[in-house]
Amino acid sequence: MTGFTSGKKLSSPIGIFDSGVGGLTMMRQAIQALPHEHFIYFGDTARVPYGDKSHDTIVRYSIENTSFLLSHKIKLLVVACNTASAYAIEHLRQKFSIPIIDVIEPAVEQAVQQTKEQKIAVLGTKATISSGIYQKRIAEKLPKAEVLSLACPLLVPLVEENFLTHPATRMILREYLLPVKEHRIDTLILGCTHYPLLSDLIDEELGGSVTILNSAQACTKEVVERLEREHLKTDLFLKGKREYYVSDDPEKFRGVGESFLGISIDRVELRSR
Amino acid sequence: MTGFTSGKKLSSPIGIFDSGVGGLTMMRQAIQALPHEHFIYFGDTARVPYGDKSHDTIVRYSIENTSFLLSHKIKLLVVACNTASAYAIEHLRQKFSIPIIDVIEPAVEQAVQQTKEQKIAVLGTKATISSGIYQKRIAEKLPKAEVLSLACPLLVPLVEENFLTHPATRMILREYLLPVKEHRIDTLILGCTHYPLLSDLIDEELGGSVTILNSAQACTKEVVERLEREHLKTDLFLKGKREYYVSDDPEKFRGVGESFLGISIDRVELRSR
Repeated sequence: MTGFTSGKKLSSPIGIFDSGVGGLTMMRQAIQALPHEHFIYFGDTARVPYGDKSHDTIVRYSIENTSFLLSHKIKLLVVACNTASAYAIEHLRQKFSIPIIDVIEPAVEQAVQQTKEQKIAVLGTKATISSGIYQKRIAEKLPKAEVLSLACPLLVPLVEENFLTHPATRMILREYLLPVKEHRIDTLILGCTHYPLLSDLIDEELGGSVTILNSAQACTKEVVERLEREHLKTDLFLKGKREYYVSDDPEKFRGVGESFLGISIDRVELRSR
Repeated sequence: MTGFTSGKKLSSPIGIFDSGVGGLTMMRQAIQALPHEHFIYFGDTARVPYGDKSHDTIVRYSIENTSFLLSHKIKLLVVACNTASAYAIEHLRQKFSIPIIDVIEPAVEQAVQQTKEQKIAVLGTKATISSGIYQKRIAEKLPKAEVLSLACPLLVPLVEENFLTHPATRMILREYLLPVKEHRIDTLILGCTHYPLLSDLIDEELGGSVTILNSAQACTKEVVERLEREHLKTDLFLKGKREYYVSDDPEKFRGVGESFLGISIDRVELRSR
């Protein structure tokens, strides 16, 4: 196990990584819930997306991202990427000693609590869906639940192009969501940090009849609880510092990122290799 | 300058790299034109796509890919990726001493020869279009030409999902192609190795009135001429060997790659790092 032991303080930052800008939807919730915390975000924009890469590669990238954030002496890590959460979380927990929160477990917990008919669907990238992680985690908690896993590989590019209300997006979503209607699903997990931006369109398409769970919200709740339980909340009461690092193209990240984050981003730094 | 000086033979391979599978559309043409040559293809699938990454990163990746192919003693390099051709070709030619062919120059040459009204459009990724390379190269040869450059970021994901005749693809294409109709373009360059798979749909959408140029064909013509001019054609007359390397997920590459290549792929190897 490698981890930080020295230099840890209550005012140390919370680290968040994602393959790109998507994880900022999680950071947005976290900033609102924890305004005094210091956050450091890393977006691996030189190697985005992770959703169609292999197990080994996703694990390697996740370890590198975590090591980078640990060099900034983070006190807690959030893996704000469903694909990395699906493939790398156990490796990270074995290798590093700080508390690590993923985006899958909290959403699963919320889904099993809220489903009435035990019919849950998950939308995700190809890699997340083919990992089978959501089925596995839901089955552990609710063995009789019917779980529908749907890979939706075109949604990330459509969101990144800001086609949020475009008729083509609606057409593609309608196809992806057909099984959700056919199986009379009552609870839907948005298993990718890009998807919350399509939440309204998905709700419309499903006629408002399905509970839509946003993993960013569930994950933030878990971060708050974990900080409290482990007595890790900051002892500062000023507005927390926010830092942003990427592996490629800071300016582009700043531009697109602000729409995901909902607040302005002053400065984005390139991670030195 | 670093390059190979030892171990070069006429039977040495031709190296081709692309960010992913797309360059196989070029290799397909090249195999037909040069059946006795030995080809080595490298797809950088661990870092695909290049089309939305930065100049520096694209240059770095291109140098790494070329070095890998040079370790296999290639006699000629084809950069079968428009984005890498747009940003890295001069760096590669400065750094390496073997003949290097890109996919842009041959298509530009063909376009300026074929346009009647001097109205040319180029479709490409964001990075290719924002490089301005097509405008620049066309202006050098045909200073009065009107050149329309159109970034079409959704076409690569749509092709990779095999949405080749899907109504959503048609809807998105119609939007992308609107300026082509408005400006009465007569010659269209498909500036991305994925786009030839949409060639029929594009032709239909434009009512068959525009000459559509496929950079893979133009590039292959250049490879054949260059081999002849520099007396580099193989002296073997058996069917040439074909080797495939990737940086991630060989099996996935094999599956998708066969539809791009049009022939079966026996084996794909993972590049050791």
